[in-house]
Amino acid sequence: MKRILEVAIKTIKESGNILLNYIGEEKEIELKGISNLVTQVDKLSERHILKSIEENFPDHSILTEETGFINKNSEYTWIVDPLDGTTNYAHNFPFFGISIALIKNKEIILGLIYDPIRDELFYAIKNEGAYLNDRRIEVSKTESLENSLISFAFPYELSLEEKNFIPFINFSSRTHGIRRTGSAAIEIAYVGCGRLDGFWAKKLKPWDISAGILIVEEAKGKVTDFSGNNIDIHTDNILFSNGKIHQEMIKILNLGKIFIRNEKF
Amino acid sequence: MKRILEVAIKTIKESGNILLNYIGEEKEIELKGISNLVTQVDKLSERHILKSIEENFPDHSILTEETGFINKNSEYTWIVDPLDGTTNYAHNFPFFGISIALIKNKEIILGLIYDPIRDELFYAIKNEGAYLNDRRIEVSKTESLENSLISFAFPYELSLEEKNFIPFINFSSRTHGIRRTGSAAIEIAYVGCGRLDGFWAKKLKPWDISAGILIVEEAKGKVTDFSGNNIDIHTDNILFSNGKIHQEMIKILNLGKIFIRNEKF
Repeated sequence: MKRILEVAIKTIKESGNILLNYIGEEKEIELKGISNLVTQVDKLSERHILKSIEENFPDHSILTEETGFINKNSEYTWIVDPLDGTTNYAHNFPFFGISIALIKNKEIILGLIYDPIRDELFYAIKNEGAYLNDRRIEVSKTESLENSLISFAFPYELSLEEKNFIPFINFSSRTHGIRRTGSAAIEIAYVGCGRLDGFWAKKLKPWDISAGILIVEEAKGKVTDFSGNNIDIHTDNILFSNGKIHQEMIKILNLGKIFIRNEKF
Repeated sequence: MKRILEVAIKTIKESGNILLNYIGEEKEIELKGISNLVTQVDKLSERHILKSIEENFPDHSILTEETGFINKNSEYTWIVDPLDGTTNYAHNFPFFGISIALIKNKEIILGLIYDPIRDELFYAIKNEGAYLNDRRIEVSKTESLENSLISFAFPYELSLEEKNFIPFINFSSRTHGIRRTGSAAIEIAYVGCGRLDGFWAKKLKPWDISAGILIVEEAKGKVTDFSGNNIDIHTDNILFSNGKIHQEMIKILNLGKIFIRNEKF
């Protein structure tokens, strides 16, 4: 595992440098639809990660956002998001990251999320804890939703239906605040180190969440679906928290309509 | 003006260091109400700025968030927010800043916003342009709302009324995305350097917006109220943009009810 971790850290930081090298320049943006910008840089970053994995671990399978599934019939599969927060990146809004996970059979055994702007590497190894750079991290100690800072993500399509805003409205009056940075990977990492107390999302993909799931679990947090059930990397609606506010978040996520704080429900 | 600028830059950076020195430590939080955390550090930062202004410009008046108005019957008034984004700071969420403006009679002649985490100093001098560190900045060139990244701020009280969420919902389906970082000053500075195309807010205070108004105006952006009228530092609802998407934003801000994109209104 030591060699795998070393290669993964070297690779993710090199791809981070690719992102930094091109930020601020005029980028050729390919519009795959509103809110789904894919930049040339995204592809450069992905190519670098694929090359590194294929050179170092030629037998491993790889699943990426851009290329799809490269199947080597291995018990090992790397899951790669070469640029999480592409819209931010395209606008030079300094909140984006790279996410890399390694699955052995069906278990996530390694997860890394790298924020090149702040040079912050979040990572976790199964049963060996979660880290920010070289410091061990844990989720926050916040006991109640009312004292929490939380965030959420959902794709553009969901903004076309009014009902999808209900949780945002219901949480707004029951927390210290709701953040929306536009990078799910970074926000999940922030749950891992206690900068956020909870994060919910709908319709994320395996490359958005796999690394983050292990980081939050190894940081002693909790990850379930909106009903409190165990999740896997394909779960459609997913809730990360410090554990202590998890039940409160589930309750609010499942309110079918708007109830402002102090209204009865 | 050169000496005033030098003192202001030195002071805001020193206060930034105070914020950095205490972040991550257990902070004694005084709860003035939910979402209105005021930390000891906020007060330390303010005391440092007051002391510096009083030593260097003993005749100038000062208006601050914590202390209120120190009236010296001067044509000069400093307006100080020693920690914008206090909730973030209390949660170690790395998005906060310091905002300092100088008013001469009724005109903002100097504005500084400092982000100590990224060591980014945004500043503007009346008729002399806007800067990020030592680089001249301008607002984005984004031509349409549809291709824009925008953000907003409003205080906790407004989350108790459902109607206040209407603009958020209406913008969501008509933009690349909406961000909410929890620091109005930083977001306004980001409009100035093109990382955001627009920002709207309700019920902000003079210390939240004064420096940002000058930065956006000197960066060739536009600042009005929600009806397109000229503003002053006491304006209750305020819109900052790159100018090009300003009319589109005004139209959406004034929709009295929810109209998802492509619905007629």
